[in-house]
Amino acid sequence: MVSIDTGRFLADLHELRQIGAYKTGVHRPTYSPQDMESRRWLMDRMAEIGLNPSIDGIGNVYGRHQGPGPHLLAGSHIESQNYAGWLDGALGVVSALALARAGLPVDVCAYADEEGHFEGGFLGSRSIIGDLSEEEIDRSHNRTDGTPLRQALADAGLAGKPRMTLEPGRHKGAFEMHIEQGTQLEKANLRAGVVTGIVAIWQYRIWIDGQQDHAGGTTMDERRDAGLTAIRLLSAVDREFPRVCGPRSTWTTGRITLDPGAPSIIPGQAMILFQFRDIDMTVLERMETTLRALVQESNRNERCKARVETVSRSTPIACDPTMLAALDAAAEACAPSLWQRMPSGAGHDSQYLGRLMPVAMLFTPSIGGVSHHWSEDTREEDLALCCDILGDAAERFLQA
Amino acid sequence: MVSIDTGRFLADLHELRQIGAYKTGVHRPTYSPQDMESRRWLMDRMAEIGLNPSIDGIGNVYGRHQGPGPHLLAGSHIESQNYAGWLDGALGVVSALALARAGLPVDVCAYADEEGHFEGGFLGSRSIIGDLSEEEIDRSHNRTDGTPLRQALADAGLAGKPRMTLEPGRHKGAFEMHIEQGTQLEKANLRAGVVTGIVAIWQYRIWIDGQQDHAGGTTMDERRDAGLTAIRLLSAVDREFPRVCGPRSTWTTGRITLDPGAPSIIPGQAMILFQFRDIDMTVLERMETTLRALVQESNRNERCKARVETVSRSTPIACDPTMLAALDAAAEACAPSLWQRMPSGAGHDSQYLGRLMPVAMLFTPSIGGVSHHWSEDTREEDLALCCDILGDAAERFLQA
Repeated sequence: MVSIDTGRFLADLHELRQIGAYKTGVHRPTYSPQDMESRRWLMDRMAEIGLNPSIDGIGNVYGRHQGPGPHLLAGSHIESQNYAGWLDGALGVVSALALARAGLPVDVCAYADEEGHFEGGFLGSRSIIGDLSEEEIDRSHNRTDGTPLRQALADAGLAGKPRMTLEPGRHKGAFEMHIEQGTQLEKANLRAGVVTGIVAIWQYRIWIDGQQDHAGGTTMDERRDAGLTAIRLLSAVDREFPRVCGPRSTWTTGRITLDPGAPSIIPGQAMILFQFRDIDMTVLERMETTLRALVQESNRNERCKARVETVSRSTPIACDPTMLAALDAAAEACAPSLWQRMPSGAGHDSQYLGRLMPVAMLFTPSIGGVSHHWSEDTREEDLALCCDILGDAAERFLQA
Repeated sequence: MVSIDTGRFLADLHELRQIGAYKTGVHRPTYSPQDMESRRWLMDRMAEIGLNPSIDGIGNVYGRHQGPGPHLLAGSHIESQNYAGWLDGALGVVSALALARAGLPVDVCAYADEEGHFEGGFLGSRSIIGDLSEEEIDRSHNRTDGTPLRQALADAGLAGKPRMTLEPGRHKGAFEMHIEQGTQLEKANLRAGVVTGIVAIWQYRIWIDGQQDHAGGTTMDERRDAGLTAIRLLSAVDREFPRVCGPRSTWTTGRITLDPGAPSIIPGQAMILFQFRDIDMTVLERMETTLRALVQESNRNERCKARVETVSRSTPIACDPTMLAALDAAAEACAPSLWQRMPSGAGHDSQYLGRLMPVAMLFTPSIGGVSHHWSEDTREEDLALCCDILGDAAERFLQA
């Protein structure tokens, strides 16, 4: 079995957290001086262990393994959300370094802007699979301060550099280790999560048109109350979705806006932000069919008409069965009975890599489920254990 | 039968609409130069027909009948909402003038700030029944521009003037004619509404506390979704309120705020603006009991706790049966089968006068139900007809 230097792995994580340190977390927004310093730090570490480091025109840092294949790809992102945690992203990059250092034939990559500081999001992983156009780069701006992406790339010294794409057929699969960003592992007293796939998010705006009237002068029979129709529709969703969902589906109403929103005025319009997530395309389609059927039923029964506007429909990524089997076996070897399979409810770089090659992810527990906040943390023994599992799984998969 | 000069009545209305004219409506906010001009215009009309006019320290204009009693009180307000209709309020004042001009023993009053330009609202009718303290005047500000009420009174030349209260026992009852501000008369092709009473409005904020979490990482079983609890509670209100309401009850959810209101975040808190209205105290109490029982049931069944905050609970005013009978008879005499009894869903000065004496109101149709907008209007034949009904009813009531 491959031997991971978990001491050095943890030391690397602690060294990296000094760059852009903020309280116990880090502030390394994409292409900031701190972010670029962390990319240079990463290239130095890659060179130290014999990888061939480079940085491309979108900021992807790539460490190419010099020996023979078959090769694996491993990595995540190295920039952080603003004033956020030390492990979100960094963990996947530094664990990939640990695998390469242990002698595994691993190319290590830090994909730029997974965190979406710039419009578009996932710039690095989309660029490396050939899914990011020059036109989109021309259009994109920083979501916080409005800086054009072109300007930010120039300021970071990346203007004019070519963008790299993955060498076709080079990689047998891509691993990504990440913090859970939830409490499922912690609540179940588990130490690792083998990720079965990354859910797709299907997002909608539901508009309901009624008639704005005075709440005193208009009888219940006369009303066309858009808010009441919204409540009845969402109540029907609450009743029907459990019948059609999958075992790990989620659905969420994030906002209900009644217009004009005054105490004595019957709402003339309602807008609902609604989304659901699942890993299974069949389940996603069944939930959408159900949503549309409920809206049709509402339109037959109610005086206010509802219509569904699709905001986005992403594609779920299923993790590779052979890689999953390798992770299962490695987890059971390193942490018997202290792991589970679970989907990822959040998006990750692997969802784009999964379009080109088999992918798999491993989750570490998150203390209190905190993420996107400087207090995000994971116990060091869990970090080390998961790095061992990842190394063991990589070895098993290469031999499979 | 008393003879109303409806030509002069309509001419007065058209003369008054020139003061602060805005498109086909008027802009006469309380204590504005236009509003004070309309009050001086009213005092001149009062003097013309032999009433003794005065204005008091809150801006109430009172025209005292000089002859023997029994006396009636009649009137409404003369200021308008901002850029609003020519009849809302003015109609009640000018029709009262018409009654006095016809020789009926009527004191005419324009009560200040029924429209609530200043905090507190209903300043004039509350002052004249002795329900407005100096301390409240000290505290009140204009809701639009923040001017202190004291400053506005001084600017209008009213500072230091005494405030008048009604002479105990002088009035047999108070009449108020008003536009409907709804479409019930128009839809039923009716020309007059005999108001049975003024509904009370009971208003609440319902707070629901959940747990804000990421919509991707938190399973349906783990969630404490404040928005979902809100939907279930409002669905229960929708189911139960029809079983406990009165024939003309209304209930309205004007706003639902989910915090933070983002598409991918499970709402950690929900706030609902809820109100109901009825003319019958027993029905109001039954609706409140039902609301509280549904919240208790929700708290037994849901993981998110709900609590009810009472915002306001006003008292309904029932119109006087003898005055109602006089209005019924007059309406049937002047407009056979073209009138109905109906409650007032909105508030009016009569709700305060009703604490001291019998009150009754007559509604004219509103074209399209429009009110609080400069396009508010009523057909002149309906205005004249209703003024005839009011005069006839006043005479019948005085003889009853």
